[in-house]
Amino acid sequence: MFLAQRRLCSLDSRAKFLKTISSSKILGLPTSAKMSLKIINAKRIEGLDSNVWIEFTKLAADPSVVNLGQGLPDISPPIYVKEKLSEIAAIDSLNQYTRGFGHPSLVKALACLYEKFYQNQINPNKEILVTVGAYGSLFNAIQGLIDEGDEVIIIMPFYDCYEPMVRMAGATPVFIPLRSKPVDGKKWSSSDWTLDPQELASKFNSKTKAIILNTPHNPIGKVYTKEELQVIADLCIKYDTLCISDEVYEWLVYTGNKHLKIATFPGMWERTITIGSAGKTFSVTGWKLGWSIGPHHLIKHLQTVQQNTIYTCATPLQEALAQAFWIDIKRMDDPECYFNSLPKELEVKRDRMVHLLESLGLKPIVPDGGYFIIADVSLLDADLSDMKDSNEPYDYKFVKWMTKNKKLSAIPVSAFCNAETKLQFEKFVRFCFIKKDSTLDAAEEIIKAWTRQKS
Amino acid sequence: MFLAQRRLCSLDSRAKFLKTISSSKILGLPTSAKMSLKIINAKRIEGLDSNVWIEFTKLAADPSVVNLGQGLPDISPPIYVKEKLSEIAAIDSLNQYTRGFGHPSLVKALACLYEKFYQNQINPNKEILVTVGAYGSLFNAIQGLIDEGDEVIIIMPFYDCYEPMVRMAGATPVFIPLRSKPVDGKKWSSSDWTLDPQELASKFNSKTKAIILNTPHNPIGKVYTKEELQVIADLCIKYDTLCISDEVYEWLVYTGNKHLKIATFPGMWERTITIGSAGKTFSVTGWKLGWSIGPHHLIKHLQTVQQNTIYTCATPLQEALAQAFWIDIKRMDDPECYFNSLPKELEVKRDRMVHLLESLGLKPIVPDGGYFIIADVSLLDADLSDMKDSNEPYDYKFVKWMTKNKKLSAIPVSAFCNAETKLQFEKFVRFCFIKKDSTLDAAEEIIKAWTRQKS
Ligand SMILES: Cc1ncc(COP(=O)(O)O)c(C=O)c1O
Ligand SMILES: Cc1ncc(COP(=O)(O)O)c(C=O)c1O
Repeated sequence: MFLAQRRLCSLDSRAKFLKTISSSKILGLPTSAKMSLKIINAKRIEGLDSNVWIEFTKLAADPSVVNLGQGLPDISPPIYVKEKLSEIAAIDSLNQYTRGFGHPSLVKALACLYEKFYQNQINPNKEILVTVGAYGSLFNAIQGLIDEGDEVIIIMPFYDCYEPMVRMAGATPVFIPLRSKPVDGKKWSSSDWTLDPQELASKFNSKTKAIILNTPHNPIGKVYTKEELQVIADLCIKYDTLCISDEVYEWLVYTGNKHLKIATFPGMWERTITIGSAGKTFSVTGWKLGWSIGPHHLIKHLQTVQQNTIYTCATPLQEALAQAFWIDIKRMDDPECYFNSLPKELEVKRDRMVHLLESLGLKPIVPDGGYFIIADVSLLDADLSDMKDSNEPYDYKFVKWMTKNKKLSAIPVSAFCNAETKLQFEKFVRFCFIKKDSTLDAAEEIIKAWTRQKS
Repeated sequence: MFLAQRRLCSLDSRAKFLKTISSSKILGLPTSAKMSLKIINAKRIEGLDSNVWIEFTKLAADPSVVNLGQGLPDISPPIYVKEKLSEIAAIDSLNQYTRGFGHPSLVKALACLYEKFYQNQINPNKEILVTVGAYGSLFNAIQGLIDEGDEVIIIMPFYDCYEPMVRMAGATPVFIPLRSKPVDGKKWSSSDWTLDPQELASKFNSKTKAIILNTPHNPIGKVYTKEELQVIADLCIKYDTLCISDEVYEWLVYTGNKHLKIATFPGMWERTITIGSAGKTFSVTGWKLGWSIGPHHLIKHLQTVQQNTIYTCATPLQEALAQAFWIDIKRMDDPECYFNSLPKELEVKRDRMVHLLESLGLKPIVPDGGYFIIADVSLLDADLSDMKDSNEPYDYKFVKWMTKNKKLSAIPVSAFCNAETKLQFEKFVRFCFIKKDSTLDAAEEIIKAWTRQKS
């Protein structure tokens, strides 16, 4: 950038002061600044700059593309959620700083809500921290509790920030894949994907500081069963490790499934951080509010990170969220309660996506929870020879090809894997189905035309 | 917390699965979990848990207290700022995720605004990053650019998060105080507080990675002059260091002063991160939006930190902020423009505070910018013998005493110093004057009564 500072600070009266300085021989001023060698990134972020969302969101920005990529609802959020924010924006004091660890009315609402599941009181000030999205909770937990040299177990595929966050803390991620049993003939379900208990046990050792769990799971849609969670809990206790439980899709479970909180298993409360998200709970991903719940001896360290990173979250959003929560807390058993109505609405969309993908000749993995569905797209035999970057995994090339040629976008599942194991998942692509009917109609059009072309 | 999980996940069908597991001898399940020794905080946050805001905000929460403590406007933010947020809350798509490095319309508005000062184009996508407040910008800059073992120069007193943020990055803060000349007789001004150029030069060495500058300054209200900034710029260039320039009070400068951007000095753009705040610009501290501006070779590392900490900021707030900016960008030369009208409004309040403090027998340091005023309160000879914690600095005890006995709150200035140098500033207390007239009236009542009592 060319520097013309004349208008702001004319150069005329500089001489005198500089004379004082340079006569004291402190400075040997260079006539022109050379580009610096010292000014590079800090080591902790080395190699952590790539991000699948940035790349693929750009790609899908073309308005002619039907975007089933990023997990971004295009359905309307509940009307009362938006109305509350509109009302609150007008109140002066609610546009100013609030308590750093969580706006008082919000932590109270969260305590009241989650008490029902933990079946015990939660201290709103000591056992809850409000963060910038679930993302912020993950960061605070990892920075506050994980040290250089620690090992952290990550289950593959995984929400993509887990790995760089662990690396930024100087720790070593230890990966274990979900593996599928053969399912010849019958439907393929997310529950066919499981951890091998022996393999899992083999990943734990004295260096293991934590395991990151995600249920309901993104991108597979797996809802962990009680038995599966017990295996994890037993290992956490045996090896004295933390469990960071990412439960952002906690309300989104489909018929026949139940979301369980590992923090409620015996011996687990004291070692578990449970993470939730307003964006996922009320379909307002743009609000970027989340929370961590856990014992004070853990939450206090997340609080320390918060007070040295962002200090506090946005007040009007927190107050609006609190008020929205109260509306639904009061009608938890009512089918109208958003926690009940949204999964009902989404189950229909899930089933529609299953049929659509099947009509294309694919065998999608039917999710038990969340709002994503994945499918092995190599069955489509797409001609990717046009796709330049031949070093990219198959699914990256496929999504780029599909976005360009079919005007339909998705997210490659190998983005949810570490570098070494991308191959295990590179045939899979993830579609998001929290979309209004007209969007799914448009996707159906594309898929029908594609099917006709194929046959 | 007592764990009763029966309602959520009854314990009946657990046996079978566990049998499979335990027969394979992987697990030796402890019958009860012992409290963990392994589960402690990460080293990087050791000792960084105390925070003056949390303590003193709690103290001032008593509604009978007139709060001139935390820098929190109780004047109304501009009506259009609030209205924009109300409108935007109703728009579905503006409640969803936006671009991670800054909402497109906001980075465009910021580029257009700051172009006027840098006198050159700013690339909205590459040279700007939108963050969770200026706080988030400070954090991203420090985490992205400062390594373990680096030295970072911090000018005392300093906005209190600078020190723990530098320590969290594993770097060493190197402190230098602003020093005041004697001012017998005449008014004491923030411009009487200066850096000694030789002392400053002595703090730079080959390990120096950055200096953190804050102009206009919190808490002193100093607005650095061109000559003063040139001394800093020359040292940054000579020693090839970064400048992190915290300019959150950039619009708030009073008659006879001008805010200058060190990034516009020759050779400085390429090594400076300039930080701003929506909270301070539009008197909406609760929005927690800020921004970093600088060359792409620096901003890209802050972007990497952002994508591994929070990913993106709240969309509705960003869009509302962008629209508010456009209103004022279009009338920059108009006295009605908030960037012009707010400092005019505040200058009157500043003068009122000066008189009030003088009436109490104090000699306040008249600020040239910002919305704080500090004064040496030891002149009041308050009887602090009641204040228990005798290890606390004088100003901590004084503020607690004043809050309790006078129902007036403020912030101790030694909170803006490091542990070793608290003594240098412990006689000073900071008052915030971005308060509506009725609040200042209430403060005046208190001070008048106090004066009567004294005489
Ligand atoms: C599993 C998982 N965790 C965390 C997040 C981040 O949530 P938030 O937007 O609240 O930060 C997401 C968002 O997609 C997610 O899928
Ligand atoms: C000098 C200075 N920098 C940064 C901040 C933080 O600003 P924000 O609320 O935008 O994070 C403040 C707030 O008081 C401040 O005074």
